[in-house]
Amino acid sequence: MPIYNAPLRDLKFVYNELFDADDLQQLPGFEEATPDLVDAILEEAGKFCENELLPLNQVGDQEGCQFEDGKVTAPPGFKAAYDAFHENGYAGLIAPPEYGGQGLPKTLGFMVQEIICSTNMAFGMYPGLTEGACRAIEEFASDELKETYLPKMIEGTWSGVMCLTEPHCGTDLGLIRTKADANDDGSYSITGTKIFISAGEHDMTENIVHLVLARAPDAPEGIKGISLFLVPKMSVNDDGSVGDANNVVCGAIEHKMGIHGNSTCVMNFDGAHGFLVGTLHKGMSAMFVMMNAARLGVGMQGLGISEVAYQNAVSYARDRIQGRSLKGATQPEKAADPLTVHPDVRRMLLTMRAYTEGNRALNVWVARALDMSINAEDPKQREDAEALVALMTPVCKSFMTDCGSDVANMGVQVFGGHGYIAEWGMEQFVRDARIAQIYEGTNGIQALDLVGRKMPEKMGRNLRPFFHEVSAYLEEKVHDERDEMQSLIMSLAKSFGRLQIVTGWIAQQGMKNPEEGAAAATDYLRLFALVALGYMWLRMADIALDKRAGDEPVFYQAKLDTARFFCNRLLPQTGALMSAIMSGSDTMMSFNEAAF
Amino acid sequence: MPIYNAPLRDLKFVYNELFDADDLQQLPGFEEATPDLVDAILEEAGKFCENELLPLNQVGDQEGCQFEDGKVTAPPGFKAAYDAFHENGYAGLIAPPEYGGQGLPKTLGFMVQEIICSTNMAFGMYPGLTEGACRAIEEFASDELKETYLPKMIEGTWSGVMCLTEPHCGTDLGLIRTKADANDDGSYSITGTKIFISAGEHDMTENIVHLVLARAPDAPEGIKGISLFLVPKMSVNDDGSVGDANNVVCGAIEHKMGIHGNSTCVMNFDGAHGFLVGTLHKGMSAMFVMMNAARLGVGMQGLGISEVAYQNAVSYARDRIQGRSLKGATQPEKAADPLTVHPDVRRMLLTMRAYTEGNRALNVWVARALDMSINAEDPKQREDAEALVALMTPVCKSFMTDCGSDVANMGVQVFGGHGYIAEWGMEQFVRDARIAQIYEGTNGIQALDLVGRKMPEKMGRNLRPFFHEVSAYLEEKVHDERDEMQSLIMSLAKSFGRLQIVTGWIAQQGMKNPEEGAAAATDYLRLFALVALGYMWLRMADIALDKRAGDEPVFYQAKLDTARFFCNRLLPQTGALMSAIMSGSDTMMSFNEAAF
Repeated sequence: MPIYNAPLRDLKFVYNELFDADDLQQLPGFEEATPDLVDAILEEAGKFCENELLPLNQVGDQEGCQFEDGKVTAPPGFKAAYDAFHENGYAGLIAPPEYGGQGLPKTLGFMVQEIICSTNMAFGMYPGLTEGACRAIEEFASDELKETYLPKMIEGTWSGVMCLTEPHCGTDLGLIRTKADANDDGSYSITGTKIFISAGEHDMTENIVHLVLARAPDAPEGIKGISLFLVPKMSVNDDGSVGDANNVVCGAIEHKMGIHGNSTCVMNFDGAHGFLVGTLHKGMSAMFVMMNAARLGVGMQGLGISEVAYQNAVSYARDRIQGRSLKGATQPEKAADPLTVHPDVRRMLLTMRAYTEGNRALNVWVARALDMSINAEDPKQREDAEALVALMTPVCKSFMTDCGSDVANMGVQVFGGHGYIAEWGMEQFVRDARIAQIYEGTNGIQALDLVGRKMPEKMGRNLRPFFHEVSAYLEEKVHDERDEMQSLIMSLAKSFGRLQIVTGWIAQQGMKNPEEGAAAATDYLRLFALVALGYMWLRMADIALDKRAGDEPVFYQAKLDTARFFCNRLLPQTGALMSAIMSGSDTMMSFNEAAF
Repeated sequence: MPIYNAPLRDLKFVYNELFDADDLQQLPGFEEATPDLVDAILEEAGKFCENELLPLNQVGDQEGCQFEDGKVTAPPGFKAAYDAFHENGYAGLIAPPEYGGQGLPKTLGFMVQEIICSTNMAFGMYPGLTEGACRAIEEFASDELKETYLPKMIEGTWSGVMCLTEPHCGTDLGLIRTKADANDDGSYSITGTKIFISAGEHDMTENIVHLVLARAPDAPEGIKGISLFLVPKMSVNDDGSVGDANNVVCGAIEHKMGIHGNSTCVMNFDGAHGFLVGTLHKGMSAMFVMMNAARLGVGMQGLGISEVAYQNAVSYARDRIQGRSLKGATQPEKAADPLTVHPDVRRMLLTMRAYTEGNRALNVWVARALDMSINAEDPKQREDAEALVALMTPVCKSFMTDCGSDVANMGVQVFGGHGYIAEWGMEQFVRDARIAQIYEGTNGIQALDLVGRKMPEKMGRNLRPFFHEVSAYLEEKVHDERDEMQSLIMSLAKSFGRLQIVTGWIAQQGMKNPEEGAAAATDYLRLFALVALGYMWLRMADIALDKRAGDEPVFYQAKLDTARFFCNRLLPQTGALMSAIMSGSDTMMSFNEAAF
């Protein structure tokens, strides 16, 4: 069975040293989020996930969810773990206090989420989706709906899910056919079929709250005619207790590559009783609240899988002896040296490490901006933070999940043949991680969101906080007198320059031909993410250089060395991406469709 | 169920137009391999694989192999298909006529193998491993063993497998513990446990011939004391009929990520009766004959999976309507346009296509060299061809299997959520393809073989045929007056220049520090492969430019366009690889092992 130890030291480094924890604690509402409290919660969450969730991860994969006669049973042990998860208060960590939550910073929630995803990604989807549903209800639903549903969802008695996709449409939600007929009492009757509904049906909570995109009969065509409805699995009595079953039935569950512990359901709504959330025909904006939260959550799935794959690869590489160091035996008393002596194994481990720790920093950076975008008093600070979150959401979702798959695959590779065998658990990480590049908007869609929406939006103002911050940092550090910092600075400056050039090029080309931006999108997102990660690595190296002479020389030297590895061996990808992008869309678009 | 049509037009293009089929037909022994015969065999093989093997591919994945009481049952339908495969003569296609084979060019065999791997990779391993075993027996075994075993194996009555890996050693075969005690009659008693033995036990043939690496009691330590033994599952009577069971028992089969249709066995040898193949203690060189054949075969698995993933992605992208073209609806009469209008989908399809068709050309190029290395009359021609095969074997194995996984993953991505669902079959390609990067020497080991063995071997002479050929081609084509050829030439020349620089750098650094080559190896192999593929694409574009005005403008224009896509959007990776390599080994080797 895979091992895992929550990376507490690194989480604390990022939370307290890389960024200033005081900034968060000083935001109105976060007064109680002292460093000690944050540390204590991380430690407890680590223990809980290591002890309760990790042992269920392979069980969930092997046993899967069972479907019989409309009912879905979660894998053995999942319900008990779900109950314990809520009893320990993890579900309400960042939820609003007025509905029973603890109201702690989302940044802390994000760090806990990483740990959950490392230990049991399929399990984590149940509370994760509930949290996204809560956020949409909180922001858009009537007070009555909020009071009826949020406390139960936050305490974990009820769960929540999103119902968007239909058999003929996923990305293009304008094609939705599920219909919503108004009833006399202001409620609606929802009829239609939804597919790929994660956690759409299960036996872990007494009720499941479906947030369903549907179309009213008089609605405008396309996405401008989509509304959002709250459709409970079980109707709710006036006293808040669960009443009769609503007309919401699970028709089947999918057999899929991974995340077997989470049910992926076909949901049939047959005149189900539902309630409008937000404004009629304006369901897409409410949906995007859920979706953006979900996208950052999916990014964390990539991060979580990266971390656990890395830890296991390191552990195996240390234990497994095979071959000799090229510079002479390091363990002459044994029949062979450990895998860690081999440069190519180190290349894999360091690649895994550089992406994982870099993404952890990125995740916390964006989480802090999310907290600031909501809780900061200064409107300018809120606005800048919101722009950064808007810009980085597709970047985090896409890059962190691409890394999740790449790192999980490297983990398998380090294990060699054993990586391919189910009992070691490494191949499960690959299968689980794979969905994260697809759902909540494929990574290609994220790239289009970045290039086609986030970049041009508000006359390009979303870009400013990021570009200004990196630019100011480089300008300041160019005068840094520490030699080891200089080569890192040069390396990031080169890649940042490429990003600036390409950003300008896309903006210019895109005005002439919208397909130029779309053709560049995926490569551009990666280029962007690499620069963002480079920025994180430089800031980490910067601190490490100051602190390595202190109490923890190994920890800080490793930060510095990983930063060097990242800048020397991974960041040069930006050059290839720039060349590819600037060769233009013609090689794609002129290709004769009939010749594919 | 996935679709598949054997890419006959492209195979014929490569065989007859890109290369000169006459060269092969003029080799002694290949007189009968007329273009018509080759075409006919490819067509028949296409039909057979489409009709018999493809329908069993998902069955094999879902039903898997069953293990009970030492016996393994192949998935339903596999035995009948196996019998039909042999009855139709596919097993003996390239086998020597003196033992019942048809003695056709290996190049033809390679092309048929691609088709088999596309339609049912797990099935293809049974005859594929038999073929590798035959080759080692043919080259190293005594006449008696050859006469006893080869005819039955070539006609398909018996199968053959390799038994190398043990629980504590895979890559480092010097650690092998399986022992071989000499009997008085010149035979040996083999005792030990082998793991990960593909097709080690099954119910499809009346006998299974195990080629087993083991150590005689007086053997030198390490790999210089390993010998190769032929150990039949069933002893063979003097009349060639099958006798009693030998002491070879399957102890278990593995549960693994993919290739469920092929049994992966733990094999226990308990004083099993075996026969020495080749010279005592010189088993590794015999093993490498099997292994090199197997490595090229594994490369073809990557190629085969790429092709079938590409075909299905294209088919889905044409059928699935979602969103609108950014330049206005292309199918205004429908609710949306097909996926093929979207630049990012085209990026994925063209990436898949460029790697797949490029690798097909590469595969045939190397197969031709293999034929020449054996059948050519001129010793210089044989020697050059042998050098090319030696050099390109790790490149093909590694790069083609990396592409196999990448292309299969892109196929899943084109399908979106449906790609993750088992019934569509796309995720199976990812799971099946994944093993090819691991077995028969991980791709990291291939890279070390290239940098540490093939490059320095014979004072670097292995490199010459490749570098001379590409160099001569570029020098000639620099004067090409066709504009469309010029930009391709510049692009390849730039990348070839990088390859030359890096090759020199590695040779120089490696003399000072052996870890430099090892640290560079994986990136170098990829750089090498991209240049080789670029060379293939230029030669294909060259021909296409001449022929596109003729009868098949769509086919040839697509070749030219794919070449442009490859050179503009994929070949620039060589720059990033060069930077990474030339940053040296220090970032890997100086990292503190305790800090991982």
